[in-house]
Amino acid sequence: MDLNFIQRLIRPAETKIVLLVLDGVGGLPTEPGGLTELEAAHTPNLDDLAARGICGLQQPVGPGITPGSGPGHLALFGYDPIRYQIGRGVLSALGIDFDLKADDVAARGNFCTLDDDGRVADRRAGRIPTEKNEELCALLRKIALPGVEVFVETVKEYRLLLVLRGKGLSGELADTDPQQVGEGPLEPEPLSAEAERTAGLVKEFVGQAWQVLADHHPANMILLRGFSKLPDWPSFEQVFGLRPAAIAAYPMYRGVAKLVGMDVLATGATVDEEMEALEAHWEDYDYFFLHVKPIDSAGEDGDFGRKVRLIEEVDTVVPRLMALEPSVLLVTGDHSTPSLLKYHSWHPVPVILWSRQCRTDDVDRFGERACIDGGLGPRIPAADLMPLALANAMRLEKFGA
Amino acid sequence: MDLNFIQRLIRPAETKIVLLVLDGVGGLPTEPGGLTELEAAHTPNLDDLAARGICGLQQPVGPGITPGSGPGHLALFGYDPIRYQIGRGVLSALGIDFDLKADDVAARGNFCTLDDDGRVADRRAGRIPTEKNEELCALLRKIALPGVEVFVETVKEYRLLLVLRGKGLSGELADTDPQQVGEGPLEPEPLSAEAERTAGLVKEFVGQAWQVLADHHPANMILLRGFSKLPDWPSFEQVFGLRPAAIAAYPMYRGVAKLVGMDVLATGATVDEEMEALEAHWEDYDYFFLHVKPIDSAGEDGDFGRKVRLIEEVDTVVPRLMALEPSVLLVTGDHSTPSLLKYHSWHPVPVILWSRQCRTDDVDRFGERACIDGGLGPRIPAADLMPLALANAMRLEKFGA
Repeated sequence: MDLNFIQRLIRPAETKIVLLVLDGVGGLPTEPGGLTELEAAHTPNLDDLAARGICGLQQPVGPGITPGSGPGHLALFGYDPIRYQIGRGVLSALGIDFDLKADDVAARGNFCTLDDDGRVADRRAGRIPTEKNEELCALLRKIALPGVEVFVETVKEYRLLLVLRGKGLSGELADTDPQQVGEGPLEPEPLSAEAERTAGLVKEFVGQAWQVLADHHPANMILLRGFSKLPDWPSFEQVFGLRPAAIAAYPMYRGVAKLVGMDVLATGATVDEEMEALEAHWEDYDYFFLHVKPIDSAGEDGDFGRKVRLIEEVDTVVPRLMALEPSVLLVTGDHSTPSLLKYHSWHPVPVILWSRQCRTDDVDRFGERACIDGGLGPRIPAADLMPLALANAMRLEKFGA
Repeated sequence: MDLNFIQRLIRPAETKIVLLVLDGVGGLPTEPGGLTELEAAHTPNLDDLAARGICGLQQPVGPGITPGSGPGHLALFGYDPIRYQIGRGVLSALGIDFDLKADDVAARGNFCTLDDDGRVADRRAGRIPTEKNEELCALLRKIALPGVEVFVETVKEYRLLLVLRGKGLSGELADTDPQQVGEGPLEPEPLSAEAERTAGLVKEFVGQAWQVLADHHPANMILLRGFSKLPDWPSFEQVFGLRPAAIAAYPMYRGVAKLVGMDVLATGATVDEEMEALEAHWEDYDYFFLHVKPIDSAGEDGDFGRKVRLIEEVDTVVPRLMALEPSVLLVTGDHSTPSLLKYHSWHPVPVILWSRQCRTDDVDRFGERACIDGGLGPRIPAADLMPLALANAMRLEKFGA
């Protein structure tokens, strides 16, 4: 639904909403006909919640679309992830907790190998180790550009982040990454008149970078893509009238939460520590986004058994969460990560919405097949969950007299 | 679906469609795990119809959105209720059977209390009784404005309707209601150049109203909002090629039916009297909208038992309706009104679509949980029911050769 439409219906209330994201929770059986990770897990508390709540499967972006973490979470926050797209440079910055400012331009970078003719021989510079990356970033940081501040940050292995800080910069630049070997790096072409100065600065930067890196084969050049600035979106609090807080141990998720204006609470990395942060701040906010990462990591590692155990671990904290007496609790994932595929996937994600007035269905098990029969249906758009949560929290006015 | 798209597919037929609206039929259990009003009701005839029809739950406006009666009905008539919005002034006029003309401008009004400094002390003038309202409206009716006719009508308690009738008037005016106490009434600002004259007339009216009401504390002023004119929408008959008739005992529903060009038939207030009206006019129309109000009223009163009994009462007339041999019968509500909440709610509404060729499902019970498993799905947009009804009435051409 359109955010303006929702915003006009918001009314104040004293209720609290919790979104518990089990990152990558949806899965697949290892063998046809078998159980998924979630179905194999012993989850008495989530099953009880499913029985008392309304269930379904949610589709983060669209049919067949495998979501990245950014779109997967934006959808759960109620923002249509196709309309509200985050630039790749900005996503890179969020992923390493870089404190991006409103006027900054960020780009995702690769160290690469150029051959003697100046053509790309390896887009990833032989996947240099992170330590080498840090050493080279220190060199690149010495490059000075007129009128702007330059930040060069290590992401991991061959990946880096470039940020230019100054007035009047634009993210409307074409990539310098040709995306294939055998071609030279491209010019950072401006895609609008306002971007001409920024294009000149980036051109100057990559020119100097080539000189700085010349003797550092295989990492003798950089390629840049996804030039972008922080988006100018309506904040979560503006739209939904909720004071929101994020509890997440990983930078990317804190970053996406910050993007919509959530306060980010300090937390340790375990589920117990995240629960402590939730309890400590329970009175201070109306909405809590609680992010549990390791389930996804187990899926990416192809470790079915570990994914099962991690789901079971989260199950044990559900009573502790319910003891806080939230008005509405949503439990779901930002996408599926089947250990069979070792990667994010397009499969819809099981969801439970619980409130005192949610109108329950006959589902009494939190699992992929069980949730097909739920009252939310087998393909509810993830972004529709936010207005439903607001309604269940008695925070939406009637539409039309 | 877009009405233009549907309109191009319409073909004539001799078939008849009946839409039976049980206002506010959807509900909630009083206790978690209990039955809803509809599930508790003994409804052998509706259950039989559910078994022979195709069932589901329909969402009148969108996920989490609690529909007013206007949007709830427009959706059932096939009009996207977000695209086709009715102004609040117009809705007020419909609600009291005021015969609004195409050029009229209508506004919803409150009697209010201004303090000695001219600031709003009570937006509802102490909720004066309807009799006092009638007395004051009689005084306001004496206000004369140049070139237009003025109507001032009592709605209920502190609420009134203002209508200006004349050529060249515009509804594009800002509210005079500041929506909070401690501020003075606002000027009726024109929101477009065409509205300047109307704004001047309204300003003149509220100025005189203040003089007229000065000695009538607590109702010593009026506040106006929702200035609007009758919308210029394609009529139901133009779009769907059906001659439509409305049978409804309450003004609001007759009004919404008139908005899309339905004929409004005279009827008594009971279900039996509405059935008599239906039988008397069976040969005259192709489409009948039959509205049953008291179920919603029982929900708003929080009277679970009365809501159950009223649903059971409607169940008894289903054979009488089927004896007329409609080609298509739709049974649903315009929204849910759980007696637990004593108010309209966002919960989707059970629906049965019956025709000779509807393709049935396994649902054999008309209830909220039973309908989740129906062939229409658990969240079909209400506006999609109209093309489905047309198809089942063999009134839509094939799309594409």
